[in-house]
Amino acid sequence: MEIISGGVCAAKGFKAAGVHCGIRKNRTKRDLSLIYSEKRATAAAVYTTNLVKGAPLTVTKEHIKDGFAKAIICNSGNANTCNANGIEIAEQTCELLGKELNIPAEDIVVASTGVIGQPLDIAPFKNGIPELVLSLSENGSEQAAEGIMTTDTKIKEVAVSFNIGGKECKIGGIAKGSGMIHPNMATMLVFLTTDCAISAEMLKKALSTDIQNTFNMISIDGDTSTNDMVTLLANGMAENEEITAEGEAFNTFMKALNTVTVYLCRRIAGDGEGATKLIECKVSGAENMQTAKTVAKSVICSSLTKAAMFGADANWGRVLCAIGYSGADVDVNKIEVSFKSAMGEIAVCENGAGIPFSEEKAKEILLENEIEILVALNSGEFSSTAWGCDLTYDYVKINGDYRT
Amino acid sequence: MEIISGGVCAAKGFKAAGVHCGIRKNRTKRDLSLIYSEKRATAAAVYTTNLVKGAPLTVTKEHIKDGFAKAIICNSGNANTCNANGIEIAEQTCELLGKELNIPAEDIVVASTGVIGQPLDIAPFKNGIPELVLSLSENGSEQAAEGIMTTDTKIKEVAVSFNIGGKECKIGGIAKGSGMIHPNMATMLVFLTTDCAISAEMLKKALSTDIQNTFNMISIDGDTSTNDMVTLLANGMAENEEITAEGEAFNTFMKALNTVTVYLCRRIAGDGEGATKLIECKVSGAENMQTAKTVAKSVICSSLTKAAMFGADANWGRVLCAIGYSGADVDVNKIEVSFKSAMGEIAVCENGAGIPFSEEKAKEILLENEIEILVALNSGEFSSTAWGCDLTYDYVKINGDYRT
Repeated sequence: MEIISGGVCAAKGFKAAGVHCGIRKNRTKRDLSLIYSEKRATAAAVYTTNLVKGAPLTVTKEHIKDGFAKAIICNSGNANTCNANGIEIAEQTCELLGKELNIPAEDIVVASTGVIGQPLDIAPFKNGIPELVLSLSENGSEQAAEGIMTTDTKIKEVAVSFNIGGKECKIGGIAKGSGMIHPNMATMLVFLTTDCAISAEMLKKALSTDIQNTFNMISIDGDTSTNDMVTLLANGMAENEEITAEGEAFNTFMKALNTVTVYLCRRIAGDGEGATKLIECKVSGAENMQTAKTVAKSVICSSLTKAAMFGADANWGRVLCAIGYSGADVDVNKIEVSFKSAMGEIAVCENGAGIPFSEEKAKEILLENEIEILVALNSGEFSSTAWGCDLTYDYVKINGDYRT
Repeated sequence: MEIISGGVCAAKGFKAAGVHCGIRKNRTKRDLSLIYSEKRATAAAVYTTNLVKGAPLTVTKEHIKDGFAKAIICNSGNANTCNANGIEIAEQTCELLGKELNIPAEDIVVASTGVIGQPLDIAPFKNGIPELVLSLSENGSEQAAEGIMTTDTKIKEVAVSFNIGGKECKIGGIAKGSGMIHPNMATMLVFLTTDCAISAEMLKKALSTDIQNTFNMISIDGDTSTNDMVTLLANGMAENEEITAEGEAFNTFMKALNTVTVYLCRRIAGDGEGATKLIECKVSGAENMQTAKTVAKSVICSSLTKAAMFGADANWGRVLCAIGYSGADVDVNKIEVSFKSAMGEIAVCENGAGIPFSEEKAKEILLENEIEILVALNSGEFSSTAWGCDLTYDYVKINGDYRT
């Protein structure tokens, strides 16, 4: 397997574009993105578990219930959620795009991200869609990735190539994260494309299995968005023998998918609103998988641990506190905690109690911008990783006045 | 019922004190507090559900399992949690104090608050306890309240008088809150005293019932502390007929207790770490009590809602988002949301969707320092209130470098 460039356009037959259509006032910020597959693709998607759901999710669910799609359209700047005519706007968007691309509206996935509860007009879509379609290009992944950004500061795209039965396949994706990130069954917005031939059923299986250990293990701020969605389109243009069951080919595909999703998870977490650091909590030695996950996520979600990481303060007591209230059944007296980064690793807690350590060395380690919190439960064989970021002044600044 | 002064010393037969004993370096900050009852009192306590528990809690549980206590000692500056010899230190503290007061160590409640996982020496207790006992006074409530503060900026004390069977009874309390506040079965530290005569069994019942709607409904930062404890001592010196069963007298007592605890809840929430505002979320029209509570607490815990309140931004979409992911089964399309303060009230959402409102008026309302978020679910008769605060730069500042 090899990391390659091209993002969501790396896989054969995919083009993308991103333009400014006028949903945002700032004319230099793209606010409408399109991903297009030359061949009709099998499609799988997972959505937020929030009861308050963005209107586009309802429309998308309806459109891909047959397991196929040909295009994805997504705007930023307005979430099209809690709007009286949200469904109507999302449907009209698909109709306008369908006409322009000469494909059925039902083959289009639609998504939105931005402010909740503000009326969204169809006019900017009407104006922007023709230019959007004209701009479609095999080099368009970056523009599309930019068009879905809100408070993100970095573009998130990646692709890998892999081999199935002698055929080179590719899978790539773009994502947006930043705030209101605590996914449950999906993350903010992730669009994945592959030219691997795989049945709709196996595609769904691959995606729903993978997200349990990837996007569902990120938390920026504990708030599960109303618009979370991960979509994966597979157009089969790599011409490998279609994957229709579990086995070696499916495993290879899962591994490639996981490489792409873990990369995007780390990018989303590290670029959380106001974040200065990526925090990874790696839990090992759990009695079962659920315990490993619960503990890892509880540490990543703890505001106090996040603030300590911002201050490069080795306040491991907050890590223990977060394990203790996680709800997981752990033997506190067996817990070990270490901090790790490019500057080295330092053990700070053994048998659930503090051990002497060099504060100076700990500071050096925690001043880096990618930190691992290693938790050994010493009670079994299960491991899990969760991703998050530090809690900073800028998170407060960004969210104290996001809407106005 | 009448609000009176005197805090934890308002009830007959209670004295208190607070001194600096040397756990903290700052010699002007009291760090050791004592509450003493002339008469042996019935005692009830509730504790954190965190699996990682402060050593003092284990010792206290043992000491009051007979339902009686005569004194409470509490230090700040060190939580005595995750220390190898924590139990030993907590027991020695009780022994030292028992000797000085000439009472059994088993009649003493012990508590600690501060940094987790730092060795705690017995020396400052040895030095401080004689002075502490000498300082005991009927005017000592404020000093005791100061001695338990960590990052709290305001003293939290209150008392009320009430009448049971022609006898004047009093109940008062002190509390500390500030950070790591998301209680589950108890809150950070609350010490309550009453001279009402009430059996140990009914005292326990009163306390465990009350905290479900009071301290368990506060959240500052979602982190459930390792050292949460609420203790209530009743020494019977008001000479009312002892309350031994439910009935009118018990109801009067419950009402007085609730007045004291709600007051302290509001004080704890409004003085959360870095807080500039007290936020109350009042949910009405829920199908059942659990739904009302779950929704109220979810809104209060949402980092995004908290940050919006800091910025006086009427971003009600975040309130709906938090209701949606709360896990409560609600009909989103029936939800109404209003914001209220001393400056008035403004409706912002009806039937789950936005309605036009004056941003200027909303800003005026949200710039106040006590804000109510009113959520009407329009699906039943149950109501609940949760308390919290805004998320500010100062929360990050305080917690980015608390330990060093």
